[in-house]
Amino acid sequence: MDGQRDIEALIALMARLPGLGPRSARRAVLHLLKKRDTQLLPLAKLLTEVGHTVRNCLNCGNLSGSDICDVCDDDRRATGQICVVEDVADLWAMERAQVFRGRYHVLGGTLSPLDDIGPEDLRIPKLRDRITAEAVTEVILALNATVDGQTTAHYVAQELSGTGAVVSGLAQGMPVGGELDYMDDGTLRAALSSRKPV
Amino acid sequence: MDGQRDIEALIALMARLPGLGPRSARRAVLHLLKKRDTQLLPLAKLLTEVGHTVRNCLNCGNLSGSDICDVCDDDRRATGQICVVEDVADLWAMERAQVFRGRYHVLGGTLSPLDDIGPEDLRIPKLRDRITAEAVTEVILALNATVDGQTTAHYVAQELSGTGAVVSGLAQGMPVGGELDYMDDGTLRAALSSRKPV
Repeated sequence: MDGQRDIEALIALMARLPGLGPRSARRAVLHLLKKRDTQLLPLAKLLTEVGHTVRNCLNCGNLSGSDICDVCDDDRRATGQICVVEDVADLWAMERAQVFRGRYHVLGGTLSPLDDIGPEDLRIPKLRDRITAEAVTEVILALNATVDGQTTAHYVAQELSGTGAVVSGLAQGMPVGGELDYMDDGTLRAALSSRKPV
Repeated sequence: MDGQRDIEALIALMARLPGLGPRSARRAVLHLLKKRDTQLLPLAKLLTEVGHTVRNCLNCGNLSGSDICDVCDDDRRATGQICVVEDVADLWAMERAQVFRGRYHVLGGTLSPLDDIGPEDLRIPKLRDRITAEAVTEVILALNATVDGQTTAHYVAQELSGTGAVVSGLAQGMPVGGELDYMDDGTLRAALSSRKPV
């Protein structure tokens, strides 16, 4: 009896995930019910576990199973560089690219007066503290190349003036593999004005 | 420490759902972690519950929280008509359309020698039994209008000959709202050959 109701509630919950709608949620739930032992129950177990153990690193804001995340806990990453990102997803993107060996600082958002996100929501005081505590020499602002991202970068840079750390931002220009014909005006302008000797 | 590992395992499991890839699975997991109390934990709880209680109706193969599903248990649906569908998803589609008031029979697949699915996997003996037990006068084959679906329909119709029940199939033709210019040849041929007086 409530089997049907439970299934419908499950579909409704799944449909609220980003990238899934009612239709794909239905498909996903049927798929899970067909693979009960190999997918449904393991998924339920992992979700419960992750839901109860995973929290934000008290130092950098990364997700972690303990109070201090693996990156902050790793002495080899005490390079004196902190990469500031908006979100954990961005931290993961940097880690996947394997291009940065220092530590991170997750702001948890960008300044957005409309969404009522002000400086006090962005963990900037903690960032200032870390610059002293971890002898940081460079802060790299790896924020999105959007208006919100760049406004926030500007604000963070200002807040960090006087800390002694060099503040830098990601370069803007042509993405690797990009074709001129497909680039927007802004990208071409940025790439041209930041041109480099070959 | 294993927080990170658990998150990665969770993403890997989510990425195996139909319609999700590694990227959308990452987004979904981050979304869930942000909405821990309203989405992650309820989802974990419902999955566990559904995983342990939902099973296939012993009569028709529909998903249900009990041995006999709501449809089979509903006396008002003992109309003497059984709608044969391939899959529970198809049963749901018929129910959403609210066009059929009888009962269903879920085959659980279509005949497919390549996938090693033969007649014995399709719950056809049970369908024969039901025709007698439920005094069925009409069996409607609501199978996909694909080669596999139609082959199976043919086979089922043959198997049911001699049971006394009328066997019919869904009409083929123009979908409602369809435009001629966009129809494939097969659909136009079917629509023309099954034309009806207006």
